[in-house]
Amino acid sequence: MNEILVAGHKSPDTDSIGSAIACAYLYTETGRAAKAVRAGEINKETRFALRSFGLTEPPLCTEFAAGQQVVLVDHNERKQSIDGVRDADVVALIDHHRLGDFETEKPIFISVEPVGCTATILFRMFERAQVHIPQEIAGMMLSAIISDTLLFRSPTCTERDKLAVKALAKLAGVDYEEYGMNMLKAGADVSDIPVEQWVQTDKKEFMAGEQTFSVAQLSVMDTAPILARRDELHRLMEADRSAHGYLASFLMVTDILQEETELLFVGDIDAWVARAFATEPRDGSVHLPGVMSRKKQIVPPLLGAV
Amino acid sequence: MNEILVAGHKSPDTDSIGSAIACAYLYTETGRAAKAVRAGEINKETRFALRSFGLTEPPLCTEFAAGQQVVLVDHNERKQSIDGVRDADVVALIDHHRLGDFETEKPIFISVEPVGCTATILFRMFERAQVHIPQEIAGMMLSAIISDTLLFRSPTCTERDKLAVKALAKLAGVDYEEYGMNMLKAGADVSDIPVEQWVQTDKKEFMAGEQTFSVAQLSVMDTAPILARRDELHRLMEADRSAHGYLASFLMVTDILQEETELLFVGDIDAWVARAFATEPRDGSVHLPGVMSRKKQIVPPLLGAV
Repeated sequence: MNEILVAGHKSPDTDSIGSAIACAYLYTETGRAAKAVRAGEINKETRFALRSFGLTEPPLCTEFAAGQQVVLVDHNERKQSIDGVRDADVVALIDHHRLGDFETEKPIFISVEPVGCTATILFRMFERAQVHIPQEIAGMMLSAIISDTLLFRSPTCTERDKLAVKALAKLAGVDYEEYGMNMLKAGADVSDIPVEQWVQTDKKEFMAGEQTFSVAQLSVMDTAPILARRDELHRLMEADRSAHGYLASFLMVTDILQEETELLFVGDIDAWVARAFATEPRDGSVHLPGVMSRKKQIVPPLLGAV
Repeated sequence: MNEILVAGHKSPDTDSIGSAIACAYLYTETGRAAKAVRAGEINKETRFALRSFGLTEPPLCTEFAAGQQVVLVDHNERKQSIDGVRDADVVALIDHHRLGDFETEKPIFISVEPVGCTATILFRMFERAQVHIPQEIAGMMLSAIISDTLLFRSPTCTERDKLAVKALAKLAGVDYEEYGMNMLKAGADVSDIPVEQWVQTDKKEFMAGEQTFSVAQLSVMDTAPILARRDELHRLMEADRSAHGYLASFLMVTDILQEETELLFVGDIDAWVARAFATEPRDGSVHLPGVMSRKKQIVPPLLGAV
């Protein structure tokens, strides 16, 4: 109980794992013993990154003990946190998302910035604390930024993300473009993943008033084999929606190379989707050219059109 | 509408004014035109600080236009903001309070730190941006920190607050201890203020579940002349409580030199107060030795005991 736990969101992505590892290292180096944990299964992209830099998976944590000291990275909404967060002692938040239902009883350290990745904020925190970033930590941080910005292609990517990647690549000793494409490819390979898991990929829940909706995202190099199974995906999404009582479930099928998204959805929400994206949906789907970011291009229009 | 407005809380104190001025200056110097505004009447302490450094009061703003770009300093709870904040475009938050009901639609810059004063966070932002702090801005920032920490006496005061004051004193060209005592004295002089205004001093509203309570604070060098009018204060507080429909109204009468607070209250809340402070209240009041901070020593126990 003395160690601070550093945790990203459920359905962890490379930023949630990489930033948790980097943040735990920074805290420990600056005198507060901390340990990274994961809130769920590691995805293929993150596994590729961990292996590339010789790191093992952080231990799984499914529930915080009451009073456990916790640092949250890469998320702040309660529904995305490890269970028990309400009675944990959240001592810091480092994030790059909109602020949701996050409240604290006392003042704590909060750093949220509109950059592409949590690791970019941490990069500056290492600088400020004058803590050297070891090779494997630099590797995870650059993996996180490449993952969140889809190697600088996402509209969420900022100059600071690019500068951080370039500096981290030197520390990690990799060619970030070559490594980045290999990592994204490893993550985008869904061929050996059961289709049931496609609809759960990086799924996050959001509140629209009193109701919840979910948005999952599958980022791939080629969407054709996925969209060929559209009916099956709709059925699986509907089953997930009704099991959780969601207002709606969305699945972004994002083409990394073409920089576009086919947004599948279930729920009686054609009018909402049409308002949000100014496009008439057809058969539970809208085609969104140029859209790659859930945070910047999907969730805000949906919330704005509720 | 092109200028960003930088605003502190209603019933502004020296931090809400000083940090708004400093932040507007920093934003403007770094390329985003910004202007400080005040959310209400300037108090005597702040007037002393403004005059000491040759500055005029920021213009009053009672309501934000919809879509107005806004930076919030020194507060985040909606009830403490200028009206219309909900439909304004809040682009940044710099604060040292607990996070309340603050939500954003998109990711924005947020820096909250558990230090004694917002100006201490801004001091580091100036450093990071490598922007020189002019004499009058340094003066307002050091006034803010001295005000919030009661010249380092408050338990909210951190090492960083002290270091910032010492550095700012050089830039402002003042002896911070001498200046600070004079400023606190100017603020603590309530002799020419109508008693009706005592109970409104730096009043803030807080949510306890669905209900609202208010906590005002009067920091003085000698509490005797104030506590001599206890019955009158209770009557005025009760009138204010019923006018606003508060669950309860509190007035901290804080002795800066003795470092203690007499906490007056109205509302049927003896049991709540007893639980929060582990002291039986008598005649709508509890004596709290060592208590000077609303944020750290009054609001958390009250919320914890609701």
